[in-house]
Amino acid sequence: MDQNKRLQAVQDYYPDDVAHCYGCGRLNKHGHQIKSYWDGDETVSKFIPKEYHTAIPGFVYGGLIASLIDCHGTGSAALAAYRNENRAIDTLPALRFVTASLQVDYLKPTPLGPEIELRGKIIEVKGKKVITEISRIADGVITAKGKVIAVQIPENFSAK
Amino acid sequence: MDQNKRLQAVQDYYPDDVAHCYGCGRLNKHGHQIKSYWDGDETVSKFIPKEYHTAIPGFVYGGLIASLIDCHGTGSAALAAYRNENRAIDTLPALRFVTASLQVDYLKPTPLGPEIELRGKIIEVKGKKVITEISRIADGVITAKGKVIAVQIPENFSAK
Repeated sequence: MDQNKRLQAVQDYYPDDVAHCYGCGRLNKHGHQIKSYWDGDETVSKFIPKEYHTAIPGFVYGGLIASLIDCHGTGSAALAAYRNENRAIDTLPALRFVTASLQVDYLKPTPLGPEIELRGKIIEVKGKKVITEISRIADGVITAKGKVIAVQIPENFSAK
Repeated sequence: MDQNKRLQAVQDYYPDDVAHCYGCGRLNKHGHQIKSYWDGDETVSKFIPKEYHTAIPGFVYGGLIASLIDCHGTGSAALAAYRNENRAIDTLPALRFVTASLQVDYLKPTPLGPEIELRGKIIEVKGKKVITEISRIADGVITAKGKVIAVQIPENFSAK
């Protein structure tokens, strides 16, 4: 595998017709456009919340936390699936996952302001299902932990 | 209890200093501003996603689903806590909850377009903890189920 490809965000290679997700689609100009990368055997994503992404004033909105864990979970699932097939993320067929189950435990309030880091561990890759554990880190402290069960969507999946 | 007060949204009575939540704060002009009401022994909230709240085109973004379940869970927790104390939601001290744990199972894709209904069941009210189960309904079909463990925040809680 080309090492450079391992440094690209998997969302940059989502096919155009499945690249509109509010959380991670590069074609959704209203959305968060998060990016998921490999960092060794873990996956990483970084995000700076807007000032209005607040819960109680001073802390990050839990729904945003859940959203980022969700999207970094599906991005991590795609990264893991490509690696599992020993393929670069720009090769076809494209692998794209959606969330079947999301669990988030809020360990402590996440301060609003600092860049937030999401780190993913791949727990299991089995058939079309990938399980990841995502830690949410702010100022070096884990403030939330999530578990995402993601399933691969069929090619040419559409609501139409 | 004044029956009319049972028909008001609990978020309309959140104290100003804890009414900025991106999901449910009436003072967050960028946010969803969801409202949670009693409907008999269940709680209900309704929301129409924007066209950009998309996952795969045609379906609602899972992170939004998680966010709405989260916020309707904390709103339902507050409703349940007032009822548990046999108090109207405009009485003091105000009861405001945050999420300790969120579990969402996505049963089927939620079509983007129709109004979405969230229905909550109060599972347990114990001390400062309330557990709710939230079903997300679109076009009469349950598309996601969530469980929210919410905890009451202390009065005068602040990040400052």
